[in-house]
Amino acid sequence: MTEQAGEHVHGYADNKDDHLRRLRRIEGQVRGIARMIEDDKYCIDVLTQVSAATRALQNVALGLLEEHMSGCVVDAAKAGDAEAAEKVQEASAAIARLVRS
Amino acid sequence: MTEQAGEHVHGYADNKDDHLRRLRRIEGQVRGIARMIEDDKYCIDVLTQVSAATRALQNVALGLLEEHMSGCVVDAAKAGDAEAAEKVQEASAAIARLVRS
Amino acid sequence: MTEQAGEHVHGYADNKDDHLRRLRRIEGQVRGIARMIEDDKYCIDVLTQVSAATRALQNVALGLLEEHMSGCVVDAAKAGDAEAAEKVQEASAAIARLVRS
Amino acid sequence: MTEQAGEHVHGYADNKDDHLRRLRRIEGQVRGIARMIEDDKYCIDVLTQVSAATRALQNVALGLLEEHMSGCVVDAAKAGDAEAAEKVQEASAAIARLVRS
Repeated sequence: MTEQAGEHVHGYADNKDDHLRRLRRIEGQVRGIARMIEDDKYCIDVLTQVSAATRALQNVALGLLEEHMSGCVVDAAKAGDAEAAEKVQEASAAIARLVRS
Repeated sequence: MTEQAGEHVHGYADNKDDHLRRLRRIEGQVRGIARMIEDDKYCIDVLTQVSAATRALQNVALGLLEEHMSGCVVDAAKAGDAEAAEKVQEASAAIARLVRS
Repeated sequence: MTEQAGEHVHGYADNKDDHLRRLRRIEGQVRGIARMIEDDKYCIDVLTQVSAATRALQNVALGLLEEHMSGCVVDAAKAGDAEAAEKVQEASAAIARLVRS
Repeated sequence: MTEQAGEHVHGYADNKDDHLRRLRRIEGQVRGIARMIEDDKYCIDVLTQVSAATRALQNVALGLLEEHMSGCVVDAAKAGDAEAAEKVQEASAAIARLVRS
């Protein structure tokens, strides 16, 4: 299923606004961390905010993964075993990157 | 697709020996870490082995996840949307546990 | 050692510019991810960028932790055991949050 | 501070029994995961146990890290800046491995 194929809609299509809202908030968190460093805030307090922003990014990833599986992977499974194998392999590599990041 | 349903075979069925071999090795790694502590080995060296065993466990999990997607999730997708949604939801929760562990 | 104590300088003081430069880049990465979603880019490609931004945030955290240990924890160790114990305990909690995020 | 230096006692010395007890339990968890695979248990249930064992291993690591900081790093800080720098650098590398595992 190629990205340009007219009939394919990505799994996240229905949740675009939610993802964009989360990403804007994460952008603000990152700016906030920079301000804490400019203002010489205590290291541990800065680290707490970095962990919170990291966790928020992972929540975006977990949402995208679920939507990818319920959209792209399920569509591919209905299309045929070869398409399904390709999508599963891609999803597994994405999960490994997420686990190791 | 319940576990007991005669016709369902888990995604990992073809790789059981490989998983069992890895798990036996991880068991040995954990015993090795215990011996290092009994022998008063240097903390950092013990930590290096704990990270290696943690990584080996995650590799088992990543393998099981891929097999679950290519087996159970793909089978469910072919069976119907309700079955597919349930399997995707289960897989997503397992991925979240793995990312957060 | 409280944050307001005039004579204490945080461990990251010497690397502020480097941290700020990294954080600005991560801000840009997060905006880039949002644009990919607006442009309906393929889920896996978006996920790759989310993992990259997550990793970049963790690198900021690892740098701040090292600087905290070499600054605040070492200073506290020289000051006395009670101060050292407090700093070590704070650093350990920050490490646990980072490992679990 | 070399491992063999008579006067140095590792940070974990006081908690050896606790670490050994945890490691024995993790060994049992890993054996239990192998039995689940031999018994063809459902993939998701096996994955839940792998995440639990991974988390238990990380708890051992977090404990060892705290003890290393309060023992070896604090001792080194009292001994001198060069020793402290070496220990902090080692601890940071161990934290990075743990975060990335």
